[in-house]
Amino acid sequence: MQTVDLRCVTIIAEAVLERRLIDDVRECGAKGYTITAARGEGSRGRRTSDWEVQNIEIRTIVSPAVADAILERLATNYFHHFAIIAYVQTVGVVRGEKYI
Amino acid sequence: MQTVDLRCVTIIAEAVLERRLIDDVRECGAKGYTITAARGEGSRGRRTSDWEVQNIEIRTIVSPAVADAILERLATNYFHHFAIIAYVQTVGVVRGEKYI
Amino acid sequence: MQTVDLRCVTIIAEAVLERRLIDDVRECGAKGYTITAARGEGSRGRRTSDWEVQNIEIRTIVSPAVADAILERLATNYFHHFAIIAYVQTVGVVRGEKYI
Repeated sequence: MQTVDLRCVTIIAEAVLERRLIDDVRECGAKGYTITAARGEGSRGRRTSDWEVQNIEIRTIVSPAVADAILERLATNYFHHFAIIAYVQTVGVVRGEKYI
Repeated sequence: MQTVDLRCVTIIAEAVLERRLIDDVRECGAKGYTITAARGEGSRGRRTSDWEVQNIEIRTIVSPAVADAILERLATNYFHHFAIIAYVQTVGVVRGEKYI
Repeated sequence: MQTVDLRCVTIIAEAVLERRLIDDVRECGAKGYTITAARGEGSRGRRTSDWEVQNIEIRTIVSPAVADAILERLATNYFHHFAIIAYVQTVGVVRGEKYI
């Protein structure tokens, strides 16, 4: 089965940021996204104040260029102020042309 | 720790398709699956009618051959009529022999 | 955008094991984790007694060494007694230094 190598970008953040993050992801060129509810715990910065809050996980399948634009946007707008996790994976996508 | 390289197939679809999709995944040779609830928004074909509906995400760890069979089955039975996302990742699995 | 290649370890297990698994993941060196609710069905060992139970999915972004420690811990403490799925993926992480 023919697949196209694209990028899956995963963003885990506080649920209150959902609308803003979706707007950002779309503005960077994503054609769609999937959201699941999540809980998490981690360390925010050097003070290591632990948190376990209601999070959302946003995933979007995009081209490498759009993945890069999303990560840049996150770095500029969120990383200094919010506990956001963002990572990228290569995925083989069926009907990949729908996502680019 | 010894791991075996297998495939993780992820299918995101409308919740109403759950039973059918699980039957298909099993018939193609998957030994098990995991389901999480998801929401999504995307474009369905060229008319770009946006949707945000209750989706499910089905994931299954399988051999490359079974992954291919699942994707073929999805392409034949669903892609013309349903807004389904399907993608494949390589994963290192502990106790990989249980999945093949 | 600069990313660091790290490991995403995914553990799928019965919800009742959540506290124990989180303690294990942390003791192995993980700085944080994300949990989502999941349902699943699979075969437990050779008897193929099917189950569909309330599961949790724990994910954590860690260094290769910590990923290995987690998998070893799971193999030692859980694999003989519990239906646990564990797999590892390579992910490109923004601000990767926070996770190691």
